[in-house]
Amino acid sequence: MENKLYEYARLLVEIGANVQKGQTLIISSPIECAPFARMCAGAAYDVDCREVVMNWTDDFLTREKYMRADDAVFDEVPEWKVRFFTDYANQNAAFLHIYASDPENLKGVDPSRPARASMAGGNAMKDYYRMQSASEFAWCIGSIPIKAWAKNVFPHMSCEKAVDALWNAIFDAVRITGDGNAVKRWREHLGKLSERKQKLNEFNFKYLKYSNSLGTDLTIELPENHVWEAGADISRIGVDFVANMPTEEVFTAPRRDGVNGIVFASRPLVHDGNIIDKFSMTFKDGRITEVHAEKGEDVLRAAVAVDEGASYLGEVALVPYDSPISNSKILFYNTLFDENASCHLAFGEAYPCIKGGAQMSREELLRHGLNDSNTHVDFMVGTSDMSIIGVTHDGREIPVFVNGNFAV
Amino acid sequence: MENKLYEYARLLVEIGANVQKGQTLIISSPIECAPFARMCAGAAYDVDCREVVMNWTDDFLTREKYMRADDAVFDEVPEWKVRFFTDYANQNAAFLHIYASDPENLKGVDPSRPARASMAGGNAMKDYYRMQSASEFAWCIGSIPIKAWAKNVFPHMSCEKAVDALWNAIFDAVRITGDGNAVKRWREHLGKLSERKQKLNEFNFKYLKYSNSLGTDLTIELPENHVWEAGADISRIGVDFVANMPTEEVFTAPRRDGVNGIVFASRPLVHDGNIIDKFSMTFKDGRITEVHAEKGEDVLRAAVAVDEGASYLGEVALVPYDSPISNSKILFYNTLFDENASCHLAFGEAYPCIKGGAQMSREELLRHGLNDSNTHVDFMVGTSDMSIIGVTHDGREIPVFVNGNFAV
Repeated sequence: MENKLYEYARLLVEIGANVQKGQTLIISSPIECAPFARMCAGAAYDVDCREVVMNWTDDFLTREKYMRADDAVFDEVPEWKVRFFTDYANQNAAFLHIYASDPENLKGVDPSRPARASMAGGNAMKDYYRMQSASEFAWCIGSIPIKAWAKNVFPHMSCEKAVDALWNAIFDAVRITGDGNAVKRWREHLGKLSERKQKLNEFNFKYLKYSNSLGTDLTIELPENHVWEAGADISRIGVDFVANMPTEEVFTAPRRDGVNGIVFASRPLVHDGNIIDKFSMTFKDGRITEVHAEKGEDVLRAAVAVDEGASYLGEVALVPYDSPISNSKILFYNTLFDENASCHLAFGEAYPCIKGGAQMSREELLRHGLNDSNTHVDFMVGTSDMSIIGVTHDGREIPVFVNGNFAV
Repeated sequence: MENKLYEYARLLVEIGANVQKGQTLIISSPIECAPFARMCAGAAYDVDCREVVMNWTDDFLTREKYMRADDAVFDEVPEWKVRFFTDYANQNAAFLHIYASDPENLKGVDPSRPARASMAGGNAMKDYYRMQSASEFAWCIGSIPIKAWAKNVFPHMSCEKAVDALWNAIFDAVRITGDGNAVKRWREHLGKLSERKQKLNEFNFKYLKYSNSLGTDLTIELPENHVWEAGADISRIGVDFVANMPTEEVFTAPRRDGVNGIVFASRPLVHDGNIIDKFSMTFKDGRITEVHAEKGEDVLRAAVAVDEGASYLGEVALVPYDSPISNSKILFYNTLFDENASCHLAFGEAYPCIKGGAQMSREELLRHGLNDSNTHVDFMVGTSDMSIIGVTHDGREIPVFVNGNFAV
């Protein structure tokens, strides 16, 4: 176990955030994950980072705040917080986010509170989020178990066993065996993802047409000069990093106004500390015109109403049904894992997945059809019978996904 | 135990920081103290505070930083940190500091690193520290056990027993019995301290002459119009608060250039994560001209050299040898407790303990003889045979302390 933990910490620091000698590393972590966060800090000092700065979080106090703080708090972002993230990003620090949360931490909270906080944060920290989505600095999100989350994933186990089972599931998902070769396995994996994105880029599809037995029947137009991305990004200072660990996806941005039809979610979505399940969205010329959810509909409605851009799509991502996380048959209640078990979409902000996009302003990207928003929420739509047909600019129809898996 | 914890959290929030309806509370706490910090946050929401903002710390990562970070880090203070403390202070937030640290957390660290960090912090956050020492906002320091600290206090006990013993010692020191009457006991106690300070103010001493069998032979001149303070302060918004819990002291500021002789420490001093023990300081016209320590002399030398003012006294505090903490015979290795078991002095910054001082600038205070520095370090000098003679402006000699206790 100790070997695996250390291998995982090194992987996040050396492949994920890829911390360089003399570079500052910001680690965001729940206090409950302190032993592992400390190990990551140690791994960063091992590669001669300049300094590790901690940004501790706590589910308990987050819930207390959303339940009990003065209502005005949720429309404000203190200047120190803006400076914290923006200044370190401007200084080319690397950011490691250890994400672990009770999926229902905010159950019972007025959903307008996290939605307003998300809007306020997006507005106040627009520079930081723009730099993040343009990969200007290195960042990486990874997860480790906490009790409340593990009990959601494995509800029939004791707390201790659930935590152990979740550790094992995570180690499998991130290719950690304890043999010290995780870094090598990741380089191979990133190579495979890179091949996939190249194939998709060569097709230069005009549309993707989704359908499956859940009832999904959706056409997504892709912008001219869109680019499929996968695996590693390169930061402003020329360093490779992997923003999500695990990552199994190949993704691009849709045309903001080119989405029509209906899509059904294939997995529950954890958002703003609530579970949203069995939901669908209907699109007309890109805009979400209807949402339905059997569970958490109020949270979903608040999420797509955060701002104008929240009701348009910002990401199209392809993940084969036959992928390691999907094959584990574990529902993680954590988008970092669940989105890598399934084709997914996101409403809100688009990554600048267009030729020259990293150098474009938000306004230029918008003119090229890429969505602008203060939010970005992934949701899972892939199934074992998902069909995706790519339509080229000259009208050819290419099967991209057949029975849930890549066909190209 | 649960009753005592809750009574303690309420005491710190309602008497210590005295959090008001609609006021923001900043809690600084080690992550190891999270359960108690959460309880304090709950107590603050119980009195309808606006929001609780956490400033988490971690001994482990602090040590990692001082051992392994780039050397330049210790001369810098990031802007976000300055904004964090200064902005909340300007907004009249209350500050609760839960202080708990391994007394030897920085053993083996180059002492110039914490000394430089202290100087840089003092410079960058001058406004915040000025507001704090002028009681412009409400603040309170309290402590709870952590393992590493408890093992220092009770080295012959198991870790678990040491923590229990330290809890009991702290509860005794802060008058917590679990009967729910701690707030009442504290009001009585603060009344008694107030009587003492009034008596001392009536004498309006020109000098205090210290002597005891350790070899202390020290004359301290007090500034004209000096004021003895004790117990509760009143913040800019007119709210009573108690900056230290426990507090047994009556204190004022010495004349910066009016200290002559030698003083011997009566208890070890924990400073910058190191223990300094069996030490003496020699003064000539206020300035520390010699320091000796059997243990930690390098740390002490670095501390009095932080800036010009660090080598002058900034505080004179009287605590009877026969006080509850002293009578417990426990050496706490934590200045918050040890200074309230013993007469003490501090080198560095003076509190503005002079008539009209809270409205004076640092330069004006300096002209009135009060010391200016970016540091303020208390050290203990009281013994069972301490004699302190007060000399009035008309030359009368009044025994203030006889055999370690108040004689006035």
